[in-house]
Amino acid sequence: MQNSRSKPCSCPSLKLREVASMYFTMVAAFLVILVVALQGSAPRQSDFPYKVPLDPQGLLELSWNVSYPEQAVHFQLLIRELQFGLLFGMSDRGEFENADLAVLWSDGHNSYFGDAWSDAKGQLHMDSQQDYQLLGARRAPEGLYLLFRRAFSTCDPKDYLIEDGTVHLIYGILEKPVRSLQAINISALHGGLQRVQLLKPNISIPELPGDTKTMEITAPDVVIPSQETTYWCYMAELPAGFPKHHIIMYEPVVTAGNEALVHHMEVFQCAAEFDSFPHYNGPCDAKMKPDRLNYCRHVLAAWAMGAQAFYYPEEAGLAFGGPGSSRYLRLEIHYHNPLVFKGRRDSSGIRLYYTATLRPYDAGIMELGLVYTPVMAVPPGEDSFILTGYCTDKCTQLALPAAGIRIFASQLHTHLAGRKVVTVLSRDGRERQVVNADGHYSPHFQEIRMLKEVVAVFPGDELITTCTYNTEDRSRATVGGFGILEEMCVNYVHYYPQTQLELCKSAVDPGYLHRYFNLVNRFNDEEICMCPQISVPQQFYSIPWNTFNRDVLKSLYGFAPISVHCNKSSAVRFPGEWEKQPLPSITERLPEPVPRCPPAPGPQPAAPVPLNLGQLRR
Amino acid sequence: MQNSRSKPCSCPSLKLREVASMYFTMVAAFLVILVVALQGSAPRQSDFPYKVPLDPQGLLELSWNVSYPEQAVHFQLLIRELQFGLLFGMSDRGEFENADLAVLWSDGHNSYFGDAWSDAKGQLHMDSQQDYQLLGARRAPEGLYLLFRRAFSTCDPKDYLIEDGTVHLIYGILEKPVRSLQAINISALHGGLQRVQLLKPNISIPELPGDTKTMEITAPDVVIPSQETTYWCYMAELPAGFPKHHIIMYEPVVTAGNEALVHHMEVFQCAAEFDSFPHYNGPCDAKMKPDRLNYCRHVLAAWAMGAQAFYYPEEAGLAFGGPGSSRYLRLEIHYHNPLVFKGRRDSSGIRLYYTATLRPYDAGIMELGLVYTPVMAVPPGEDSFILTGYCTDKCTQLALPAAGIRIFASQLHTHLAGRKVVTVLSRDGRERQVVNADGHYSPHFQEIRMLKEVVAVFPGDELITTCTYNTEDRSRATVGGFGILEEMCVNYVHYYPQTQLELCKSAVDPGYLHRYFNLVNRFNDEEICMCPQISVPQQFYSIPWNTFNRDVLKSLYGFAPISVHCNKSSAVRFPGEWEKQPLPSITERLPEPVPRCPPAPGPQPAAPVPLNLGQLRR
Repeated sequence: MQNSRSKPCSCPSLKLREVASMYFTMVAAFLVILVVALQGSAPRQSDFPYKVPLDPQGLLELSWNVSYPEQAVHFQLLIRELQFGLLFGMSDRGEFENADLAVLWSDGHNSYFGDAWSDAKGQLHMDSQQDYQLLGARRAPEGLYLLFRRAFSTCDPKDYLIEDGTVHLIYGILEKPVRSLQAINISALHGGLQRVQLLKPNISIPELPGDTKTMEITAPDVVIPSQETTYWCYMAELPAGFPKHHIIMYEPVVTAGNEALVHHMEVFQCAAEFDSFPHYNGPCDAKMKPDRLNYCRHVLAAWAMGAQAFYYPEEAGLAFGGPGSSRYLRLEIHYHNPLVFKGRRDSSGIRLYYTATLRPYDAGIMELGLVYTPVMAVPPGEDSFILTGYCTDKCTQLALPAAGIRIFASQLHTHLAGRKVVTVLSRDGRERQVVNADGHYSPHFQEIRMLKEVVAVFPGDELITTCTYNTEDRSRATVGGFGILEEMCVNYVHYYPQTQLELCKSAVDPGYLHRYFNLVNRFNDEEICMCPQISVPQQFYSIPWNTFNRDVLKSLYGFAPISVHCNKSSAVRFPGEWEKQPLPSITERLPEPVPRCPPAPGPQPAAPVPLNLGQLRR
Repeated sequence: MQNSRSKPCSCPSLKLREVASMYFTMVAAFLVILVVALQGSAPRQSDFPYKVPLDPQGLLELSWNVSYPEQAVHFQLLIRELQFGLLFGMSDRGEFENADLAVLWSDGHNSYFGDAWSDAKGQLHMDSQQDYQLLGARRAPEGLYLLFRRAFSTCDPKDYLIEDGTVHLIYGILEKPVRSLQAINISALHGGLQRVQLLKPNISIPELPGDTKTMEITAPDVVIPSQETTYWCYMAELPAGFPKHHIIMYEPVVTAGNEALVHHMEVFQCAAEFDSFPHYNGPCDAKMKPDRLNYCRHVLAAWAMGAQAFYYPEEAGLAFGGPGSSRYLRLEIHYHNPLVFKGRRDSSGIRLYYTATLRPYDAGIMELGLVYTPVMAVPPGEDSFILTGYCTDKCTQLALPAAGIRIFASQLHTHLAGRKVVTVLSRDGRERQVVNADGHYSPHFQEIRMLKEVVAVFPGDELITTCTYNTEDRSRATVGGFGILEEMCVNYVHYYPQTQLELCKSAVDPGYLHRYFNLVNRFNDEEICMCPQISVPQQFYSIPWNTFNRDVLKSLYGFAPISVHCNKSSAVRFPGEWEKQPLPSITERLPEPVPRCPPAPGPQPAAPVPLNLGQLRR
């Protein structure tokens, strides 16, 4: 025994040493009491131009700005009724596991601020690198303001990488004192998520001309239904004889107090082929809603929570009014009312800024991505299945002017299984530029986004749109189509000058898909009947999904020729041969962006920062 | 004109500022003349236990040590006839493009040292982060010693990540003065590559018992042929009646002066079924070489350049001698003589240390990976095609003792297309441990490597061996087989206690491969005949390779059941059903290792370090 105990064994002593070292570091950090700057004056609103409520009650209000030179976001978080602290952070899709968090907590006497992360089980840990940097805290009549900073990229593998596109913000409210960060039980928190585009593009705003007029398309004092989700439809009408104008800007009009309820709004123009539309005002899914409203789908304006005013580039405007365009507009408002407030009245909508002095170019909207057809399908049980739609060189060669077009904004679109969307511009087989990318795309947050850089597209260029889907919760294949449980992969790009090309999309050649069904049939011992007389969705539904059938479908989509829709409108193709076209080949990919790490002096050590907030309420 | 020139344009001024800032940084760095420690005494050999000549003439000699606590390698480079400097570095496979380099250069007056990198065209650039840290330089009668340090991982994307397994070192000699780093023309350099295992395992060496004897199996003063590559075969014989012993260690014996020529050496034991073997001494590929030598394939010892002595764990030894084992041994030496030296004599070989006091366990060698069969094939034109061989739970359940076996060393093996090899241990569908991995594997450098950690394998465990192949230079499929242009995927693992299991490998089920040929046939419009009467290689050669046929082959290998070889010897299977076995399913992968970045104070700024070496020869 004695002998075995005297064997050299370095592990326990090493651990003791580590623990001791951590302990003294912590003690030292506690002794260095941070003097939090109690600023005399409130920060101006222009310091934090972007604002969004985090919770449906509006108790937490986040404002922020983006510094591209510093590659950092500055946050100002207003906590209206602080209890014993809160969690604020980011995660891949808004979950509380594997999240990157800034935590303010109080044990009832003292308050602390720290950078933390949650593991796959939701357990909180202090981060070894403190990358949420506290800049100040301030008490005001309306609540407590916390100011903190976060670099886009920290090079800490526990941290969220802030990228272009959607960011899922999460919050949680501490309603009881907590002894320590580790003692916080995430699953018992009152919390939620909010989606925003954190990295707003840093573009200059064109001046509005002197003759700018405004028009408000707003709901007529409706009572927001006491249910979680309502799409409200309201029909508006332009004055008779309203001549052609250019919309050059629009902005949201949100009824005060309803900021946390109005999720997104769109103004659509109706189809010109109908002389009149009924004056409907009610839920969009009501049985009594006139069918004709389905012909009001041409987007004039779109806004979502956290978005600001939308400005057209100074050379272009969106035409509305005049002969050949409908006088009827449809306003659609998505009310998100998870707390089921009753009797809230709302007159939100969109304010259009327009001018009679037409700008040099009409702006247009072009649809890129996949044709709405069941031949493009996603097997069930996939965590990230990729489908790609092509706008081919042949189509842009034919349809774009020699001087090219300029894409300045983009709205990505999928149905419920969509998780990522990206469109890349390729020229001579080489990827040149990302048109728009969202690696945390959510079908519940479909903004029109101004691009950081205007993208010039010339005849012969290719626009390749790739969507990633998650079907882990589904038991049968998800086919392309219009249904909410079917899928789409679309990028509506806003560009000028307007061309005849409204739609440049693709889908796999149906003949090759038929060969796939045959192949699956034979490989799987002909146990299933892939009879040609049954529909494509039925054939997809009858496939016994396994890794082979799944992988071969991927291979098919990566190999088979495509049917190209190079259309003037959804029904009229440009002349030419568009069937069995070769897949664009890419010989050179864009390099993966390498995240820049924060420059020296770098992040702070891993210890919570004590905060002098006085005693919080018990 | 005036107007357009007065437009704000910040770019040129910004660039000027940057250039100016860089200039002043450089000047400042030059002013801080580094006092290079001119050490009074030479470093002891034990400071740098590993040594390898870099060039065939032995003008450059690299010694090094590995500090696992610091996660760094310390290099000592002896330059015997310094001209105007040299390049030393690492790259993926020994190429001079995309390399990570330490450069010593002289303009004829002053000398500098710096961390550089070469781009895809071979152009040199000073690295923005200086991670080769110069520790000293020392003149000695035999030449100049440079001492420098490099962390395994620098987190600089331009730097090579030093990992376990093979590292391709490169060197280049500057024969003329150069004005600057950028002026070095890599393509005109005299240079080359040397493969080593830089990260030698940090394992304790067992003591040799008092009765240890040695036996040298060495070439009998042969004249090294004046050709680049020679495999020399020499037959040796154990004394008659030599009883069973345990080899417990072996080491190389390299004739002085030939260190750069003796590339690798192996000692094989011949098959016991033949009573005698001819005493051959000559090239292994000579026409007059007796065929019977092909029956001498059981590895007793293997050494390759840069390797040290090989020690068996103290519980085990490799049995040789005694009844049932052949007295005949074959020594094979690979002479690498690219400068075609003439008349060099050599008596290199291997010195075996053995004992008659048998250790508790006999060591054994087991073959993991793929069966040598053409059903496993790699399409042409692939840059990294993966094939996987399985040692299944069913086989280990049957063949391994309840207490398991301990793998302590491993020799990876492929033919010319092999680029990576890795074996992973999986238990209950979860990957547990890497047995051996080489991400820069070269078929020209097949050492037996001691494992950093002994791997315990129990009944029911799975051993999964994955090989990555490059066939970009080939125009037809590469099938599995014995030929040098056919492929293998093997890991010879050294373990104890020895079991009956000699071979635990797999290959795809031939019936499913036949379905694949049919499928390819039909999908490609039946243009080709996949007639069943022609051989599998012929069927592979006749496939019109495209991404679909390639991808579906991958899918097949990832899906189809396997034929398992769970064998006592290459011909005798364990009893059981081994055909159409399910592929082991992996539910949890090992996480990718996250490289640790060097701790503060961190790397030095991006400027060359002036060195006071006196004037170099012109």
